[in-house]
Amino acid sequence: MTTTSPPPATHRTRVVVVGGGPAGLLTSHLLHRAGIDTVVLDRRTVHEIETTHRAGILEPDSVRLLTETGVYDGGGQRVLTEGDRHGGIFLRFGGRSHHVDFERLVGASVWLYPQTEVFTDLHRARTRDGGDLRYGVADVQVHDVETSPRVTYTDADGSPHEVTAEVVVGADGSRSACRNLVAGNTRYTREYPFAWFGILCEAPKSAPELVYTRSDRGFALISQRTDSVQRMYFQCDPAENPDDWSDDRIWDELQSRVAGEDGFSLAEGPVLDRSVLPFRSFVQTPVRHGRLVLAGDAAHTVPPTGAKGLNLALADVRVLAEVLERALRKEDLDLLDEYADRALARVWKAQHFSYWLTTLLHRAPGAPGGDFDELRQLGELNSLVSSEAGSTYLAEGYTGWPTR
Amino acid sequence: MTTTSPPPATHRTRVVVVGGGPAGLLTSHLLHRAGIDTVVLDRRTVHEIETTHRAGILEPDSVRLLTETGVYDGGGQRVLTEGDRHGGIFLRFGGRSHHVDFERLVGASVWLYPQTEVFTDLHRARTRDGGDLRYGVADVQVHDVETSPRVTYTDADGSPHEVTAEVVVGADGSRSACRNLVAGNTRYTREYPFAWFGILCEAPKSAPELVYTRSDRGFALISQRTDSVQRMYFQCDPAENPDDWSDDRIWDELQSRVAGEDGFSLAEGPVLDRSVLPFRSFVQTPVRHGRLVLAGDAAHTVPPTGAKGLNLALADVRVLAEVLERALRKEDLDLLDEYADRALARVWKAQHFSYWLTTLLHRAPGAPGGDFDELRQLGELNSLVSSEAGSTYLAEGYTGWPTR
Repeated sequence: MTTTSPPPATHRTRVVVVGGGPAGLLTSHLLHRAGIDTVVLDRRTVHEIETTHRAGILEPDSVRLLTETGVYDGGGQRVLTEGDRHGGIFLRFGGRSHHVDFERLVGASVWLYPQTEVFTDLHRARTRDGGDLRYGVADVQVHDVETSPRVTYTDADGSPHEVTAEVVVGADGSRSACRNLVAGNTRYTREYPFAWFGILCEAPKSAPELVYTRSDRGFALISQRTDSVQRMYFQCDPAENPDDWSDDRIWDELQSRVAGEDGFSLAEGPVLDRSVLPFRSFVQTPVRHGRLVLAGDAAHTVPPTGAKGLNLALADVRVLAEVLERALRKEDLDLLDEYADRALARVWKAQHFSYWLTTLLHRAPGAPGGDFDELRQLGELNSLVSSEAGSTYLAEGYTGWPTR
Repeated sequence: MTTTSPPPATHRTRVVVVGGGPAGLLTSHLLHRAGIDTVVLDRRTVHEIETTHRAGILEPDSVRLLTETGVYDGGGQRVLTEGDRHGGIFLRFGGRSHHVDFERLVGASVWLYPQTEVFTDLHRARTRDGGDLRYGVADVQVHDVETSPRVTYTDADGSPHEVTAEVVVGADGSRSACRNLVAGNTRYTREYPFAWFGILCEAPKSAPELVYTRSDRGFALISQRTDSVQRMYFQCDPAENPDDWSDDRIWDELQSRVAGEDGFSLAEGPVLDRSVLPFRSFVQTPVRHGRLVLAGDAAHTVPPTGAKGLNLALADVRVLAEVLERALRKEDLDLLDEYADRALARVWKAQHFSYWLTTLLHRAPGAPGGDFDELRQLGELNSLVSSEAGSTYLAEGYTGWPTR
């Protein structure tokens, strides 16, 4: 005999989206535009998501996903008015900065626009359009993805719910539970012998665009956020404790990494936030299992160097929404394999690009090549900045490949 | 008391070149054209050098060094008549070949022309011009490079000799003794967990240009030599014993590496020669010490994947001859530091290129990334062949950077 609990309130929808971050919300948004009802579930509250600092570079295709699919409606296109267009990046090595001019090389720019803003825009759009968004829920469990999917959860009041659907989209991020439901999956992982120490600081901008720096002390990235708040990172030991780092020590380390014959230095200010960011490459295949499909970080994570994580998630969703609409209309879920093929081709390109930019700029302590690799790395950087083709190849990867 | 031996026959010249391979002979040839006398010394006999199989791809600049500096005189330009112009290479992966069209991408070709032929041409030119070439000598010793260089050796009859000179060029190859004379040198080395198994076989050509193959069983390179003799290689364990490999086993391995959906296969024939080739990256700095300068393999070796070894040696010599002529004319040997700077910039680009082409196509058994790296590698290859810029960057590296 089991204790009786109240029967769950049951709902029916066409697609349950597990995860209400940008990937989940964009899925819901694009399916809504195709006339397909969704329910979005997330353990986190909206406030928790809105206050978590994340990456902030959008590829042109990601910007178009926001501006051309009705996310903004009458109220101006925030990504264009609040975001900053960056026509390139700086590669800094040997104490000098080399501009990689994306506009000139590939006719494209990227946009500095933090992920939290993307979330806010998508959340407003779904709210405006009457989307069924359920944040702050607990005990989310996905059942029977091979036959008739059901998702159970407990709401903020402790009441049990069940949602049945034709398809479940697992967009539940880098600690995805959904991906464990893919039977016979293969996980491809690469660990790195370093991590990133990230800070948010109150200071004016030190450079107009991102400065990717290779120094004898390791990598550093000088990024921006607003006119008075900046984001910066430096390569560190994965076991580094942020509490061991005073403001002075942080600034000394950053300044020494960017120092050079051109006299470049950083505008300093109080450090508002400091943390050590995880750093690894991960892909799980397959991304479809029965009536469950994975999208974004749930299926793959990239090291942050190439700024690809969010863009890759949005590119997944763009293809997924298109294929899912067709699969539901034709009642042929095997069409979802097309999503898997198209998304994975891009994922492996992005994985390579992120790995490449990482190895191009980081020190690899204890690597087999040792000092040889240090000088080879400088040889590569010199080849790259002195080659129009090499710089173009880098610009293509950074601004993103066309979604096919 | 010491035993008395006959006093050495003494000679005087302006530059002693230790090593009579292509780098040493080209040094002697170019200095001769500048009116500077040289003596070339080599432990090996001409026959030994002429019968050692070596790499066979020349960059356009290397071809020009042969055709535009009077190596051929009236008798036709053998590199152009006997060599084969290759307008590109094939990158083969996923069971398909992708042509990288150097002519279209960068307006340049490379030439298949074995190193032994380059040696023969330069040796004929120096003999024709009355060059002082002393092969098959023993006990070569270089003395007093910081002040008044002397080189002592014993000739084939056992008689001792001494040559005094203003400068010594160490072009004595990958097992250079000269490089040990550079005080306070730094050696940068990278070892690889694999080597190349190379064969020479009697068979027609299997492809019109080189086929660089990435397969699940590891790298293979299908190269050519003549219409009836071919050169092929496959990645192997460095400890592999060539005697363990029958012709059948070799062909099975090569065929399985190039097999694919397009039905490509190799024309087989008797294996004439088999050997395991060393595989490492090496650079020594500085390349000048007093009145001694190093050139070619004595200063740096590259893995064979990028076909850069001979080309890099010839590029060294091109710059060295120009700078050395000036240094001797102005009686200011510190000008030789210009050679060091210009040569090393190219060396590190070539080191990176050779490393890149190696990691792009080889399996790295036991690498930290494991299976992840296998699929990332395919992601890189797909990015590369689908990008005009990426293919151009590869073509630039393969056909060589301009000598500055």
